[in-house]
Amino acid sequence: MFDKFIMHEQGWLSGDTTESSIVFSSRVRIARNLKGHLFPEKSRVQGKCKVLDNVEKVFSDVPAFSGMSFLKMDEVPDIDKLFLVERHLISREHSGDCIGKGLILADNETVSIMINEEDHLRMQLISPGFQLKNSWTKLSGIDDELGEKLDFAFSQELGYITSCPTNVGTALRASCMLHLPGLVLTKRITKILEFLAKISFITRGLFGEGTHALGDFFQISNQVTLGVTESEVIDNLESIVRQIYAQEIQARNILMKRDNINVSDNAWRALGILRYSRLITTKEALGCLSMLSLGIDLGIIKDVDFPGCQDIRRLVNNLFVLIQPAHLQKIEDRTLKENERDFIRADLLRKALN
Amino acid sequence: MFDKFIMHEQGWLSGDTTESSIVFSSRVRIARNLKGHLFPEKSRVQGKCKVLDNVEKVFSDVPAFSGMSFLKMDEVPDIDKLFLVERHLISREHSGDCIGKGLILADNETVSIMINEEDHLRMQLISPGFQLKNSWTKLSGIDDELGEKLDFAFSQELGYITSCPTNVGTALRASCMLHLPGLVLTKRITKILEFLAKISFITRGLFGEGTHALGDFFQISNQVTLGVTESEVIDNLESIVRQIYAQEIQARNILMKRDNINVSDNAWRALGILRYSRLITTKEALGCLSMLSLGIDLGIIKDVDFPGCQDIRRLVNNLFVLIQPAHLQKIEDRTLKENERDFIRADLLRKALN
Repeated sequence: MFDKFIMHEQGWLSGDTTESSIVFSSRVRIARNLKGHLFPEKSRVQGKCKVLDNVEKVFSDVPAFSGMSFLKMDEVPDIDKLFLVERHLISREHSGDCIGKGLILADNETVSIMINEEDHLRMQLISPGFQLKNSWTKLSGIDDELGEKLDFAFSQELGYITSCPTNVGTALRASCMLHLPGLVLTKRITKILEFLAKISFITRGLFGEGTHALGDFFQISNQVTLGVTESEVIDNLESIVRQIYAQEIQARNILMKRDNINVSDNAWRALGILRYSRLITTKEALGCLSMLSLGIDLGIIKDVDFPGCQDIRRLVNNLFVLIQPAHLQKIEDRTLKENERDFIRADLLRKALN
Repeated sequence: MFDKFIMHEQGWLSGDTTESSIVFSSRVRIARNLKGHLFPEKSRVQGKCKVLDNVEKVFSDVPAFSGMSFLKMDEVPDIDKLFLVERHLISREHSGDCIGKGLILADNETVSIMINEEDHLRMQLISPGFQLKNSWTKLSGIDDELGEKLDFAFSQELGYITSCPTNVGTALRASCMLHLPGLVLTKRITKILEFLAKISFITRGLFGEGTHALGDFFQISNQVTLGVTESEVIDNLESIVRQIYAQEIQARNILMKRDNINVSDNAWRALGILRYSRLITTKEALGCLSMLSLGIDLGIIKDVDFPGCQDIRRLVNNLFVLIQPAHLQKIEDRTLKENERDFIRADLLRKALN
């Protein structure tokens, strides 16, 4: 499954400027539930299947869904589920206990709708680079069309009703995936993360809750959904991301002034390791790609031949995703042991960057 | 001083087979003292100058010394002294308190004679690869010629009289510089070093007493000088080195069978770092050169272009010496701070190996 996905870059990965190498992607997500049905985690299999049926029935009548696929999760092979997790199209939770769970997915992977995850509907839209407003407008359009066919649980007083109270209200979570090697190298990141927590923003790593900041990636999202409008949620996050972006640029300038030679050494070594290693873990590869990406942005890595690659910026962004375990297993079309993955990952990176 | 030395490879570095990449060099050294003069460390400056004069007077009458230079150590600039240490032509001790100290040196650096180090004369001969017997024959010839001009302190009962009792007798120390990455990687080296200590052989690192095994180099020499003939000293060491050589080959075979992919990863990464880093310490550079050397011997590093280099084996052997601090300072012709050295070392390695 998803074989056509594997070798093309994801729709939201097509950014190719320095801005999009710092603000990697923008994501908006809303939760919706159907009136008169128990929340998925309170519901038995039968109840979930009923909800799934209801969504499937209206699927082809929603214009926004044209060109998208409707999938039942229990029909998706395990390796493909992990693949969907790595591509940020479903949550890790959505890949287990699959009976009654579903997925609506756009071919270019910008839109995915989980059915019967924590809520009946979790609708997300990812865009490349820094496009929060635009993303929200698009997702809001899909929400409106679907709302005409399904009866969403809504309270005049509270707003949208959700399974977890932290989502009640707008039920909107917006996030940006930021690549912040400058703030990590200058060690300024700690204070920024503390500040974000204080003003109720959530920070996560590349792979969601509880994951470390692999490859210097940080996903920043709003915590508050109640007592604010959708526009406020988007505007607040946009303003915060703009500030962090400015801080990252400043950190990079400081690095170039005060620590030019060390940054240059890090960036070039990263390219050396990516081009020469025969075994490399996901963690080390992400770290090296992060330094390579920084080196390209700062003009350190230049006058280098990357034959067969027209746009090194896009290639690097794409490699961040491709080197992950399930992607490698999709490429090889079999289950791989850890050591095999490290070997195939090194091989893929070497060929891509030589 | 010694500017003509800096960019040509040392005479004893010209080995270019796998054998000479394991047995890097062979060295013989004898201690001699002049009858009727105090040992250097018991002697005042005047006494040492007298000995130095005596040697200088006969210098041009010894046929073996033709084409060699006679130097007074107090006339050698500090940077050149360190340079001589790095090239194993004098000891670190011989580079301090220089009044009354001297050096006789062959242009191709195979022969060096320290005057008024621990003994009046410390005569050494270094040859590339595994050439203990041949080296001893040559040094013995020089000793015979010099003995005709100077009156050496000798006891019928004990043999040659030396400043330190551990040298009395033959006053001969023979050693081989071994490159043993296979035994290091398989962790067999510890047992071998223990065994060598038990049978009274001395093991040192690349830079003499007390230095660690940088770059997986081990200098092995005889401890016993009394109660044995010169031939026995040479034969015993030769036999021990042959055994260690066989163990190293066996270790490499085991690595290739059991751990091929890790060794290959280490070797290729080493080349990547040497070709890409912008800052590199002596220690890391020696480690990388060691792995690169192993990779070449094992046929792992192949089908690689080294433009401008006809013999990669010899180039690597030469780089082991060239990357050392005083060498870099000779090349740059000025004193360098540590960070500057790391930068220039990386630059030299990158240019040599690209």
